[in-house]
Amino acid sequence: MGRLITVADSADPRLADYVRLRDVQLRKSLEAEHGLFIAEGEKVIRRAVETGYPVRSLLMAPRWLDPLADLLERVDAPVYVADDAVLEGIVGFPVHRGALASMARRPLPPVPELVADARRVLVLEDLVDHGNVGAIFRCAAALGVDAVVLSPRCADPLYRRSVKVSMGAVFAIPYARMTDWHHGLGELRAAGHRLLALTPDQSAVPIEKAVWGERVALMLGTEGDGLSSRWLKAADEAVCIPMSPGAMARGVDSLNVVAAASIACYGLMRS
Amino acid sequence: MGRLITVADSADPRLADYVRLRDVQLRKSLEAEHGLFIAEGEKVIRRAVETGYPVRSLLMAPRWLDPLADLLERVDAPVYVADDAVLEGIVGFPVHRGALASMARRPLPPVPELVADARRVLVLEDLVDHGNVGAIFRCAAALGVDAVVLSPRCADPLYRRSVKVSMGAVFAIPYARMTDWHHGLGELRAAGHRLLALTPDQSAVPIEKAVWGERVALMLGTEGDGLSSRWLKAADEAVCIPMSPGAMARGVDSLNVVAAASIACYGLMRS
Ligand SMILES: C[S@@+](CC[C@H](N)C(=O)[O-])C[C@H]1O[C@@H](n2cnc3c(N)ncnc32)[C@H](O)[C@@H]1O
Ligand SMILES: C[S@@+](CC[C@H](N)C(=O)[O-])C[C@H]1O[C@@H](n2cnc3c(N)ncnc32)[C@H](O)[C@@H]1O
Repeated sequence: MGRLITVADSADPRLADYVRLRDVQLRKSLEAEHGLFIAEGEKVIRRAVETGYPVRSLLMAPRWLDPLADLLERVDAPVYVADDAVLEGIVGFPVHRGALASMARRPLPPVPELVADARRVLVLEDLVDHGNVGAIFRCAAALGVDAVVLSPRCADPLYRRSVKVSMGAVFAIPYARMTDWHHGLGELRAAGHRLLALTPDQSAVPIEKAVWGERVALMLGTEGDGLSSRWLKAADEAVCIPMSPGAMARGVDSLNVVAAASIACYGLMRS
Repeated sequence: MGRLITVADSADPRLADYVRLRDVQLRKSLEAEHGLFIAEGEKVIRRAVETGYPVRSLLMAPRWLDPLADLLERVDAPVYVADDAVLEGIVGFPVHRGALASMARRPLPPVPELVADARRVLVLEDLVDHGNVGAIFRCAAALGVDAVVLSPRCADPLYRRSVKVSMGAVFAIPYARMTDWHHGLGELRAAGHRLLALTPDQSAVPIEKAVWGERVALMLGTEGDGLSSRWLKAADEAVCIPMSPGAMARGVDSLNVVAAASIACYGLMRS
């Protein structure tokens, strides 16, 4: 049973997990250092708890105690209660969803373990936008992807915005992070995955003609520069999603990475 | 030729177009009232100018005068120059891209005029997220959509974030806004467009079996609730993108609207 604690001071040190939620740099180091992440809103908090992430604490406006009563029964952690002004003072903006949880991260599996039983894998190289990472997880969950592998520098799926945009799919899709960018793809190949590099280069094999193979890993590149040349070379095949002949004249030379992931995952699912 | 004016005070009233760029409410009313929008970064500014939007003024750090010299030659508007601290004081955050332009909006065409020559149209009902609107325009430009129709309350494609996420595709794809939500779809039907409502409801016709017709309008719904029941009923056919049987168990009951738009536009382009 959670212990209710009313907080009246937004500088209360017990709320250090929740400070300045919009300050990306601060949050990155704070969350890494303490091994935590923030779940926001009733639905996301419930899903994080159901998935088995341990709760460090909760923080909410009084009006949320009732809707969350059953969950508060079950968790063994402090439940800080604060009014909207104090909440805003802590996190740095008005918290419309009114309920936050600080959750403990769990160790990620090594890549070989993650992909051992996964037929369809996405590999994300150095995506920087948390919204894009979240959207790709949602798409993966909807379209039958079994696991996601992140490059060492890819944005964090448990960052608040990723979690939110994913609608909680980051809790449902198993994922791992490579420790070694240079040799990371080797672990996928060793597990029997065919590596398909997705590139906007319209001279690559059109996705309809791609050879999927029994086990496949679709590689997606960063928002600005796309896949590194090293990873492009390491792939078994480079594959493109054909674009309209008029795209260039309209100043568009690629799809955004979420659009590309969606079309590719859909094609894979229907193959 | 732009007139260079150095500004040392972030409260200078000549810079009123640029204040508090992250304050969505303020910006919405300010931009509507003065009929302006903000273009950010060299590439986007160039595309806005090329498309023929009139420049009200420019605002930049001194280091941008050189790379933009050719453009400044051609525009007839004040060019305000300020150092990074003054810039930050005006817009409310550090401006990494360092160059901003305030552009005048132009009147949008009426819907019947817009769609008269458009074979493939997207219709967006009440999307609230500017990033999603921008991403859908980019996808439309890449995948051969001719025009976009917005519901009366749909988020603004010329809002700073929409423009940025679209990579300028909002300048390339003609669009219009319905004035009347109740009867707006009638104008599309009158122009001969078959209205296909995209819905996550998996009992709808799967998109592979949809009858596209010679002229088609794909209707997409808002992020939270999807298409209104009125619009769903008004459609010629409700169409779904099949999702993986495991999606529900993973807590996912729909694709995000950008993913759905991408898959549908791709299907339409290839049909
Ligand atoms: C915005 S794109 C990167 C664009 C970059 N200029 C390039 O040339 O790769 C981000 C990623 O989305 C995927 N992508 C974008 N458009 C694609 C297309 N038409 N076909 C296949 N993949 C695409 C690729 O994986 C790419 O690395
Ligand atoms: C996030 S969804 C809205 C979900 C909402 N709960 C509903 O039932 O419509 C936003 C829009 O994306 C489109 N969409 C999402 N998933 C889809 C799917 N599987 N098939 C077709 N359209 C979909 C629809 O146009 C929908 O209105």
